[in-house]
Amino acid sequence: MENIKLNQLIFNDDGLIPTVVQEKISNEILMVAYSNKQSLELSLNSNKAHFWSRSRNKIWLKGETSGNTLKLFDIYTDCDTDTLIFKVELEGSGACHTGSKSCFFKKLENE
Amino acid sequence: MENIKLNQLIFNDDGLIPTVVQEKISNEILMVAYSNKQSLELSLNSNKAHFWSRSRNKIWLKGETSGNTLKLFDIYTDCDTDTLIFKVELEGSGACHTGSKSCFFKKLENE
Repeated sequence: MENIKLNQLIFNDDGLIPTVVQEKISNEILMVAYSNKQSLELSLNSNKAHFWSRSRNKIWLKGETSGNTLKLFDIYTDCDTDTLIFKVELEGSGACHTGSKSCFFKKLENE
Repeated sequence: MENIKLNQLIFNDDGLIPTVVQEKISNEILMVAYSNKQSLELSLNSNKAHFWSRSRNKIWLKGETSGNTLKLFDIYTDCDTDTLIFKVELEGSGACHTGSKSCFFKKLENE
């Protein structure tokens, strides 16, 4: 396992990097969000997942209103260093604002 | 599980939708790529993962040169219908162009 520093990551034109949130134990994918440099520093320093909210245009501590925070264990990046995985543990009932554990509860039909 | 049609998906300004590729059995995340409407139709009709290559600016059958194709089982989308998961089985030795099984073999250091 190669180690990467924050300043080696490649952010997109908006300064963001897609972040897949995966439950540490089950490997279930809970959600996909976007990080920027500041939210990553906050995530690393607090061990709570923070993101950049593209709709609210601000830093977002996941669970700040719902209480459904995500305890962060490790961050992995890919061969291109332009995508992240957050390995987390759920501290509340679920990751999705709908109340579901995972945001991925819809299936694409083959028409 | 709610069913979604292709025309209900939300593509970004470039006509793309981020696509997390996850091994069906282990739930391991193999890679993250981008789909567009055409690559999704090809994926659904062939049961082989196709993507839009942002670097080569063309449709890309994953494994077309390496032979490391990905057999596609199911496609899930999230509450916002703007991100996909491809549930796949590896048909070759790995998903990453480096030879690794997964592209996510680097770890972000907390400096």
